[in-house]
Parts: sequence; structure tokens; C-alpha cells
Amino acid sequence: MPKKYIKAIDALQEAQKISLAPFVFQTTVSLKNLGVFDFIFQNVAKGGVTLTEICEELSISEYGLGVLLEMAESSNIVSMDERGRYELTKIGYFLNYNPMTQVNMNFTQDVCYQGLFHLEDAIREGKPAGLKELGSWKTIYEGLSQLKPEVQKSWFDFDHFYSDGIFDEALKIVFRHEPKLLFDIGGNTGKFAIQCCAYNQDVNVHIFDLPGQLKVALKNTAEKGFGERVQGSEIDWLSENPKIPAGADTIWMSQFLDCFSKEEILKILKTAANAMDSQTELIIIETYTDRQKFENAKFTLEATSLYFTALANGNSKMYKARELMELADAAGLELKDDISLGEFHTLFVCKKK
Amino acid sequence: MPKKYIKAIDALQEAQKISLAPFVFQTTVSLKNLGVFDFIFQNVAKGGVTLTEICEELSISEYGLGVLLEMAESSNIVSMDERGRYELTKIGYFLNYNPMTQVNMNFTQDVCYQGLFHLEDAIREGKPAGLKELGSWKTIYEGLSQLKPEVQKSWFDFDHFYSDGIFDEALKIVFRHEPKLLFDIGGNTGKFAIQCCAYNQDVNVHIFDLPGQLKVALKNTAEKGFGERVQGSEIDWLSENPKIPAGADTIWMSQFLDCFSKEEILKILKTAANAMDSQTELIIIETYTDRQKFENAKFTLEATSLYFTALANGNSKMYKARELMELADAAGLELKDDISLGEFHTLFVCKKK
Repeated sequence: MPKKYIKAIDALQEAQKISLAPFVFQTTVSLKNLGVFDFIFQNVAKGGVTLTEICEELSISEYGLGVLLEMAESSNIVSMDERGRYELTKIGYFLNYNPMTQVNMNFTQDVCYQGLFHLEDAIREGKPAGLKELGSWKTIYEGLSQLKPEVQKSWFDFDHFYSDGIFDEALKIVFRHEPKLLFDIGGNTGKFAIQCCAYNQDVNVHIFDLPGQLKVALKNTAEKGFGERVQGSEIDWLSENPKIPAGADTIWMSQFLDCFSKEEILKILKTAANAMDSQTELIIIETYTDRQKFENAKFTLEATSLYFTALANGNSKMYKARELMELADAAGLELKDDISLGEFHTLFVCKKK
Repeated sequence: MPKKYIKAIDALQEAQKISLAPFVFQTTVSLKNLGVFDFIFQNVAKGGVTLTEICEELSISEYGLGVLLEMAESSNIVSMDERGRYELTKIGYFLNYNPMTQVNMNFTQDVCYQGLFHLEDAIREGKPAGLKELGSWKTIYEGLSQLKPEVQKSWFDFDHFYSDGIFDEALKIVFRHEPKLLFDIGGNTGKFAIQCCAYNQDVNVHIFDLPGQLKVALKNTAEKGFGERVQGSEIDWLSENPKIPAGADTIWMSQFLDCFSKEEILKILKTAANAMDSQTELIIIETYTDRQKFENAKFTLEATSLYFTALANGNSKMYKARELMELADAAGLELKDDISLGEFHTLFVCKKK
């Protein structure tokens, strides 16, 4: 990346902002959760509201609201006119109403904030040292179903925001060649298996996942009436010698490989390659940091990497497309298609070399 | 404050940055503590260092350093050239080497980060709800001497950075009229009492503070050989009816009133006024948010207010000069001098009306 020119005085200001960033973040979370942003915005037509009016409406102390709004004004989140009436700035508006910003903020606060305190330890130890703030598990995947409801909601909202909507596009690509048997690797809640069965009446799906997730997935698919066409096998990709059988027309891995280290990904791809014949398609969907159209999206993915480091598993990340290509090549796979999907995703179709 | 013009796309970018700010903050803390910033800067003359070189020198995993440097590059803290060599940007340089930024960052991480998670609760309850992350006290002042060494160091470094150096200037003003008896309200470690005794051989100092602090202060002043000229009385300003005796030529309150709410300050100033005659000078030193020459300083003071809210006592802040003037007036005091002191402070000399 080329260096961006910045004046020394502006650089110092930016360094100061970073050094006090948690204050601004928590100020924003508080103003949002206390309903202050909403109330200010609802009163934009009457030219803003004063501190006293906000306090009365929302039953907050003048002291408490005062310290929040002073920080928010200095951070250009709200503005105050000469009569003491507050309005949201554009930044304040986006903080409260932009869906991606909201999803990110809730994920940061509810899932990541406390655990991130241990980021340095996580890097030193190669373990998700911050996960203890949420519970006593080795990885977050073990604990997902036991998270507090509001933490779980923020986790799933984040997960879904960056993956919903791509299945429709992906299904068309998956079923170009009318696969009869599809292996869904990391089937999670069975969401994709259900969509496959609904999309094509002949396909059979075999889900591979950890025991806990598999149970949930098979229950969900059966409830949707696809019990006969969806089977499953337990697998732990971190075990000594994981195996999947031959016979699939398509092997599907969507936002699955980013949960593993490069060494683990190579093992998984080699295992898949061993189960493939010359016709089998391996479809990989990921959000690659070097394939983002917008800086914001790249920035979010890099933050997600730090979530993996500090909280999820301690050793995975959002990769560059180039890195995944190298790993696929090393596993004996050839990239046949490279397709942009939705706003953030890329779909690779691989075949055996 | 007038509204700053900002384009919608830049406002959205800024909102995204705020929503993920804790990731950037913790990335910075980790890179600093792991020695990465130092090592990169030491190699600026040879045109930067690669990720592999940094990992080998500092024994960090390529994975761990990779996720940190990706985030740091997107945040314009480091830059990477086409050969993969990293350098610090100006922002990165200031983050690692600017004294005020360092002091703020250590204070934020070691003292405030975890407690700030509870800011919203602190506002709702009017109590320092985040203090439990450091220990089981009602206010941080009770626990100061029991903080972990590194937390205590960051607290005192922050405190001293914004107060050291002003005593020299202040002493000249205090001793213009050669006071014989000075009341040091909130004498803390006895630092100011010692300086008074060293500056003027005739002055007697009487320290008023909580029992724990007073003991420390009297021990320190005695050790410096001023035991005969420094006495003390226990006082709890939050008690029903605190009293100080008459007889002082000067009453001194330096960075003391910001530890109290407006109601409490009014009570303290009235108590002082009752003990004053027409000649007594009350000297108040504070860092006022509306008296700062630099945006950075105002921003730091507003963050300090949030530290008071979430961690220290739940009800005090860095005030505007205007607010303190109103309180002094309401307490029956008249402002005689209004003097700028050092980079951040203001000294008020008040007399009884």
C-alpha cells in the first residue's frame, strides 16, 4: 500500500485518538443503548434538543449525559449549537443507523471487547486467551450454544450479516452440473443443506461436522422434511487423521476454512482431494481481504482476524485469495472458476489436478 | 462548536472505525508491548524490515504478527513497501514515542480498559460500576495503594504527567504574600507540603485528607525533616458536616475539586469560606476543558471525566472554568486572580466576598 501523506500535527491527533479510543467506543455504546441517539434524531425537525430535555425524557442524570456528550462532541459524533441544542453529525447518524456499523459495534462490544484485553497474551501463547471472558472452552465453537442470549445474538447477527444472501447466487453455480450427492463440510445449523434440498428435488446431502453441531443440523433438516435426503457423519478436523469417503459430486466448504490455520487448511484440502475423482467439484466460499471493493469491508475482515486470534481459536484468520490459491495448489487441486459473490465473497471451483 | 463539514463516505468510514476501535487499540498495545514498533523504527535506516525478519528477531509467530500488522497497515500505523518491508508511519511513530500518547495509552489499557466496559451501568447507577475490575472499593481513592504495581504505575504516570512542573510556578504565587499558615486540602502524598517547606522557611502547613492518605503524607513530610512544621487532620468531605478551623492565611486545593460532584464542591467551598476571613486566600488549581490551547488536551480531559464516571467515583469530572466560577460565587467567594499555569492548568485566587 502506498504511504498516505499526513501532516505531523494531524498524525499526533490521530495517535492521541487511538490511545484513548476505548473511551470513544464506550461513549458511543452508552449513548446508543441509553436511547440518546434515537431521541436526538427524532427531534432534528425542531432544531435539536438540549441536555436538560434529553435528561428529562430519558431519565438520565445531567452529570452522566454531560460527560458522554462532551466526549461525543469532541469526537464529532454530535454537534451543539450556540443555544445548547444537540444534533447528530453524519458520523453519529451512521453510528446509530447504518446496519453494518450497528452489527460491527454490537459484535465488538458483546462478543469481543473484554476478550480483546488479552490479545497480546493470545499472540504470545498461540491460544485464544480472551475466550475465558465468555466461558471455559478451548475454542468458541464449543461454547456457541452456551453463550448468553445477547452475546449469542450479536455473534449470529454478525455472522449472518456477512453471509446471508449469497446462498441464492451460489446455488445456481452448485447445481449447474446437477450433483446427486453433495458433501456439506462444516454444515453448522443445516441451513445450506435445507436450501439445497428445496432447490433441487434429486440431490442428497451428507453433512460433516463436530458432534454437537451435527446433531443440531440433522434435527433442523429433518424438521423441514428432508430427513431422508440428508445424512451426516461426525468429524473432527483437528484429529490425527480425519477422513471423508469418496463418491461426492460436489464438496462444499462455505466460510469454513477461515476457522483453521494454514497447516490445518492444507490437511483439510488434501483430505478432500483424496476423496475426489476427476469430475468432483470442490466449492470454496470465503471473504478474502485482497478481494474487497471497499476499505470498510477489508477493515472489518482484519478485525475479524483478531477476533479469531483473541477469542475464537487463536490461530485462524481471514486470508488473502492468493494464500488460499497456494494452499489449494499444494493440496493437488486446480482452480477452475473464480467468481465474485455478493458484496464480500468469492467462490472458487476446484478440481483435482 | 461549529459543525465540521465531512463527506458522507468519510463519515461512514469514521463510524466504522469507531465501531471497531477496540481492535485497533489492542493491536497498538500488542505491537508496542511485543517490541515490534521499536524494532521497526531501529531498522528505518536500512529501509524497513520484513515480517519474517521481525518474527525471527522477536520470537513471534508469523501468524500472530501477520494479523497485527494487517490491522496496523489499514489503520495507517505502519506502511509496507512493494518488497514487504515495514516502516512506522508518523502515526505509528507518535504512538510509540510521543510521551503524552504513551502515558494516555498505558492509563487507558492498564487502569481503564476493562472498567470502561461498564460505563453504561455507571451512568445508569451513578456509581463507578467499572471499579470492580480493579478491586472491591467504593471509590478508587480507597484502593490506590492496593492496585497491582503496573496498574499503579500507569495511574501515577498519568497523574504526574498532567501536574508535575506546575508547583514551581504556583509556589511563587502562593508566597507573594508570605503566608505563615497554609491549609493543604487533599494533601495526598505530602508532595506539595514538602515543596512549601523547602521554598519558605517560616511557613507551617496543615494537611487535611482521608486517614489513609494523611498517614502517608505525614510520614513523607517527617522523613524530609519537616515534621515540626507539617501537621494534619483527618477529614472526609463526603461526611455529614465536614469542618476546617479558621486561621489559615492560604487554603490550597490543587486538582482536588475535580474528584467531587458539583453539589459536593459547593459544600466544600462553603466550608472553606466559613473558615476564611477577609485576608485569607483560597487557591484552586484545575485543568478546565474550556481553557485548553490544544484539542488533544481537551480530548484527554474529557476522557478523564469518563474515567471518573466509570472507575473513580461515579460522579465527578473535569469541569469548565465557567462552572467552577459559578460554584465559587454561590459559596460566597470572589475571584481575584485567574492565571494560566503551565500547559494545561489554571490557578484561581479567591477571597471571601
